[in-house]
Amino acid sequence: MVIADIAVMPLRPYGSEEEMYKVVDRCIELIKESGMKYEISANSTTVEGDLDSVFELAKRVHSLPFELNCERVITIFRIDQKQGGITIDEKLKNHR
Amino acid sequence: MVIADIAVMPLRPYGSEEEMYKVVDRCIELIKESGMKYEISANSTTVEGDLDSVFELAKRVHSLPFELNCERVITIFRIDQKQGGITIDEKLKNHR
Amino acid sequence: MVIADIAVMPLRPYGSEEEMYKVVDRCIELIKESGMKYEISANSTTVEGDLDSVFELAKRVHSLPFELNCERVITIFRIDQKQGGITIDEKLKNHR
Amino acid sequence: MVIADIAVMPLRPYGSEEEMYKVVDRCIELIKESGMKYEISANSTTVEGDLDSVFELAKRVHSLPFELNCERVITIFRIDQKQGGITIDEKLKNHR
Repeated sequence: MVIADIAVMPLRPYGSEEEMYKVVDRCIELIKESGMKYEISANSTTVEGDLDSVFELAKRVHSLPFELNCERVITIFRIDQKQGGITIDEKLKNHR
Repeated sequence: MVIADIAVMPLRPYGSEEEMYKVVDRCIELIKESGMKYEISANSTTVEGDLDSVFELAKRVHSLPFELNCERVITIFRIDQKQGGITIDEKLKNHR
Repeated sequence: MVIADIAVMPLRPYGSEEEMYKVVDRCIELIKESGMKYEISANSTTVEGDLDSVFELAKRVHSLPFELNCERVITIFRIDQKQGGITIDEKLKNHR
Repeated sequence: MVIADIAVMPLRPYGSEEEMYKVVDRCIELIKESGMKYEISANSTTVEGDLDSVFELAKRVHSLPFELNCERVITIFRIDQKQGGITIDEKLKNHR
């Protein structure tokens, strides 16, 4: 198991914040539908899964806004992997 | 109000994960003591505050590991600001 | 000396890429005028300076788009610090 | 074409900076061998390629340190994609 953060930023063209959030919400839906454990934070969504699956998911989430007529997307994808595996619960055990 | 993520990575010298986490936990304590609203995620901690305060906090959190004998620190600090202000609750209103 | 990356993303409202780049170019100008050593990459600009100065610069660069009528800005600021100091040249000595 | 930044941080176990840099240098070698256009910066390496290829490369680069006995790796992977494509040269045309 690895832990990964996905933050998708659809940059253009958005006349309003609402349009932009609608796209981000669709990206979050895709993460939910993946079946992976996930946690939504203000600036990114954290998922827990095997390395191949999280890379595949990040690529699909990054690509989705273009199907919704977005013209420019910047995605930040951060992967934390430990020999032997790591989980969200383990990493946060001192803080929950 | 701005929303900011702080992720401090103390790189060296750590013979064990425990030593490294002890330093990260101290960084999180500093954030808690700031009095700002915060949310702890697996890969970073999100805070909500005015721009000057979150920059000041990020600098102090980044600097703390050196007082604990850390030799190398990489910090990722992400700031999300909206004209008129933004809050964690507002940003997550569709997801909680 | 610390090494820091600054990536400013002015999100809204931009009808065209040109308007958005104009804002980013102004941010890069501010970095050039700082007098710090800098290197411009495709996705961010790297600066070398003391910790207080790079934090102060990052805050000013992040704030500039709002003076240019931008409505939403996300900035990613990454700081790499080593006990005893580190420079861009030292870090890249094997690669240039 | 998309532009992507890859920053691999091998966290443990490193008694010295030299050991850590040796691993990072091997990661950079892998990027060079990919045949993609690349630019090495102080905190990350930027590559230009099609979306599938850059994701595949990022996964391989992230995985390499574990073959070199690293115990913990955090990788930051940032993708910038524009409808119709974008290149490093186009993005930096005002700055070179």
